[in-house]
Amino acid sequence: MFSIVILGTGNVATHMFKAFQNSKATRVIQVYNHRPESLKAFENLVDTTSSISGLKAADLYLLCLKDDVIEKISEQIQSFEAIVAHTSGSQTVLSKPNSAVFYPLQTFSKNSPLDYSKIPICLEANSEENISILKTIASSISNQVFEIDSTQRQTLHLAAVFVCNFTNHLYKIGEDICQKDQMPFDILKALIQETSEKVNRESPSQIQTGPAIRKDSSTIKRHLKQLKDKRHKDIYQLLTQSIIESHD
Amino acid sequence: MFSIVILGTGNVATHMFKAFQNSKATRVIQVYNHRPESLKAFENLVDTTSSISGLKAADLYLLCLKDDVIEKISEQIQSFEAIVAHTSGSQTVLSKPNSAVFYPLQTFSKNSPLDYSKIPICLEANSEENISILKTIASSISNQVFEIDSTQRQTLHLAAVFVCNFTNHLYKIGEDICQKDQMPFDILKALIQETSEKVNRESPSQIQTGPAIRKDSSTIKRHLKQLKDKRHKDIYQLLTQSIIESHD
Repeated sequence: MFSIVILGTGNVATHMFKAFQNSKATRVIQVYNHRPESLKAFENLVDTTSSISGLKAADLYLLCLKDDVIEKISEQIQSFEAIVAHTSGSQTVLSKPNSAVFYPLQTFSKNSPLDYSKIPICLEANSEENISILKTIASSISNQVFEIDSTQRQTLHLAAVFVCNFTNHLYKIGEDICQKDQMPFDILKALIQETSEKVNRESPSQIQTGPAIRKDSSTIKRHLKQLKDKRHKDIYQLLTQSIIESHD
Repeated sequence: MFSIVILGTGNVATHMFKAFQNSKATRVIQVYNHRPESLKAFENLVDTTSSISGLKAADLYLLCLKDDVIEKISEQIQSFEAIVAHTSGSQTVLSKPNSAVFYPLQTFSKNSPLDYSKIPICLEANSEENISILKTIASSISNQVFEIDSTQRQTLHLAAVFVCNFTNHLYKIGEDICQKDQMPFDILKALIQETSEKVNRESPSQIQTGPAIRKDSSTIKRHLKQLKDKRHKDIYQLLTQSIIESHD
């Protein structure tokens, strides 16, 4: 059984903690945060510490931390044999020996339950031995484990911004438009689900629908007239133009 | 049992045909298209015609047609008592007596199976009697039936462009980014599903994640450098700016 110390108490840390607690191959032995108050949610479940010098010996230190503190915290860990892995999509492997990456490609909110077995986990390490250990650990929580280098991971992270972060912002704009006219956003949820499920069956480039792909200029004009928010109008125009050009 | 003639043979017509065939309250008695070759898929299933004068008497003529021909075709139907309803999200009710709207708020592709019971159907009619008939018909295929006026329907249609058509285009850009670096788009599909399912639990304005909402300028800069396609870069900048401003 692999012993794991989780550094961080945010969304990723919370979900990784749950995933590892449910795995038979791993045990989380400690959770670290520099602010004691952030550890409260974990105190009844596991040993906690707010000081790096208080870290227990472990097989894996999992750094679920903001990008800009990963390197600094990593350097303070006296690990010797242990693997020190971060969970960032955009940071490269650190220079320290036994550094690694354990990147779960998913959007995490603390209160949303997740099926961990379906989350792709992208691994990278400095040695064959460490990759092998990380594969065993990752496979104990997920069926989707990939060995991926930093350049590929940065590509995935960039694509993820479009399909997740930007998509959620379009949902927000949809909600804004509904609310302004006192329509319930709920009525759009079946459409949102089906739009996302369709890409499991066909390539998104094959299933584009709507006024832009039809070059239906009278509907486009009316929509632009309906939109009062300058930003929404700009986004409508740019995405409409992009759909038209990329399908020409 | 209500008799229905469907005019049109596209995606909406194909799915409405299937939905009504499976309903105990309705029977599709004929499908029309002005081009005989478009009727081939229906010939073994139902009576077909390529001439308006050959239309059978029915309780409901459902016009699943392009926006710009709806009015013209509608005027040619000698309907008297029957309801003549179109399925467009953006067209108003026609002036002709017994005109109505039967708008299924969903994205339809011919080969994608759908659970019709979850599709919101937005109804509008010129009389109480007709609304009542349409409600009976719509409720026989869906649990989500709404009486909605043209202004409200146009609002929903506009919001649908953002959450469906534009979202699918973001999926396509994600696919483009993956393909350019020989990464499989499949690895992003769990993320796409979870992003869409999250809005069933929380408002999209509450669950925005990613570098823009964190104002993580070093990641944003690196992403813009990674993007080679001018259009993708423009979209990244505009949506990032919009996320930052709308959460300030």
